[in-house]
Amino acid sequence: MIVIGELINASRKDIGRAIEGRDAAAIQQVAKDQADAGADYIDVNAGIFVDREPEHVRWLVETVQAVTNIPCAIDSPDPAAIEAGLAVHKGTAMINSISLERERCENLLPLVADTDLKVIALCMSDEGMPETVDDRLKIADALVERLTGSMVKVENIYVDPLVQPMSVNNGFGMEFLNAVEAIMERFPGIHTACGLSNISYGLPSRKFLNQTFMAMAVAKGLDGAIVDPLDRKMMANIVAAEALAGRDDFCMNFLKAFRSGLFAF
Amino acid sequence: MIVIGELINASRKDIGRAIEGRDAAAIQQVAKDQADAGADYIDVNAGIFVDREPEHVRWLVETVQAVTNIPCAIDSPDPAAIEAGLAVHKGTAMINSISLERERCENLLPLVADTDLKVIALCMSDEGMPETVDDRLKIADALVERLTGSMVKVENIYVDPLVQPMSVNNGFGMEFLNAVEAIMERFPGIHTACGLSNISYGLPSRKFLNQTFMAMAVAKGLDGAIVDPLDRKMMANIVAAEALAGRDDFCMNFLKAFRSGLFAF
Repeated sequence: MIVIGELINASRKDIGRAIEGRDAAAIQQVAKDQADAGADYIDVNAGIFVDREPEHVRWLVETVQAVTNIPCAIDSPDPAAIEAGLAVHKGTAMINSISLERERCENLLPLVADTDLKVIALCMSDEGMPETVDDRLKIADALVERLTGSMVKVENIYVDPLVQPMSVNNGFGMEFLNAVEAIMERFPGIHTACGLSNISYGLPSRKFLNQTFMAMAVAKGLDGAIVDPLDRKMMANIVAAEALAGRDDFCMNFLKAFRSGLFAF
Repeated sequence: MIVIGELINASRKDIGRAIEGRDAAAIQQVAKDQADAGADYIDVNAGIFVDREPEHVRWLVETVQAVTNIPCAIDSPDPAAIEAGLAVHKGTAMINSISLERERCENLLPLVADTDLKVIALCMSDEGMPETVDDRLKIADALVERLTGSMVKVENIYVDPLVQPMSVNNGFGMEFLNAVEAIMERFPGIHTACGLSNISYGLPSRKFLNQTFMAMAVAKGLDGAIVDPLDRKMMANIVAAEALAGRDDFCMNFLKAFRSGLFAF
């Protein structure tokens, strides 16, 4: 499971302020905290600053990478912002995210074509959000075809089947989970990743629902997650579910996390 | 999801003593506590008292049913004990459990033949414990064939695929989970049920592992569980996972549990 730490997002008030004020120490603390908590990628998002997004993303990548050895997930639909981030990024970045929306796809495909970049591919098209397993598979088919047709290795693709709120339709959870399973089966070597907090939108006990849903998604094959790595219970669920799913040889990672106190709630 | 409360088991010291001393109040308290916590069946097991098992089971069924309206899961491989329990049971009992072991199967099949009893069918044969999905499916095939051939409705069968410890083999979790999924697909209308604490045998943080594994099993279709209903976090996982799996219309059960404080850890 790769964990993409989601906290450096300009839509969070403290982060937005730190970006505008060029408060490198504040950003670096959040980056280090996430890396220490087990993040594999640090997401950087400056999407609320429409005009200045490229320069902000560039600064974020430099600032984050000055204090961590892990790569960034450059989080924007804007090719200029992604290019600005990539220009200074060390190591292999992740692009968050391409989709099947025509404009987004046409703009971003050239950036990832024939590279080793990791790419999150959202199951979204100009027809809107998918609801069923079949909706998602159709979009995934087209996305994977375009990406691999542009010489992106299937191993570098993280399909995000998009979680929809179960408060809207109580079948949305299983449609998502079954889509994860179907995508992992259909494209050997591919990955799936998502932010799953949408599942609990409009309901109480959201954190607990999100944590529980994470374990369920791991059972169906999910191997990437965009989460808050400082949510210890979420990380505990991920570590435990990975071990239970047989993805942790000799439970080494689970036992290490246990010794570090991760399961001491 | 049906929840089978496991606490009235003579192998637990307090319960063994209460059975021997005919301490009805003690047994009834445990029965009521489990029913109040959401159990659908109360398991009764007097297996440690080899010679006196039938009379003890009979007393347990009478004692439990004097204070609860829910049925018992009569838990014995001994047909005499099961008959003794059934003789006084009100409503439709569950038999825990038949298996493909020749003696057990031949002894118990006549008791459940052509009845409306619910039956837990263990994926165990004289060749021992199954390890792979295929091992389990072979046994499940034979068990379902025998049971339905004896006029037991498929809707009354709860196949227990048997959980094996992941500390022995880290693939055992997924073999079990995939067996649940395969059994639910193969026999429309059937159920699966199990006690799943074996998964964490030999590891630390067992309760947390068991709770996480429950959510994963629900994602794969598990709809019966032999658990301690007084383990609030386990029950919280079950209620949340059921809602997330779309088995809780309008999240009514989840919201009721929320209002009762189930998620206030």
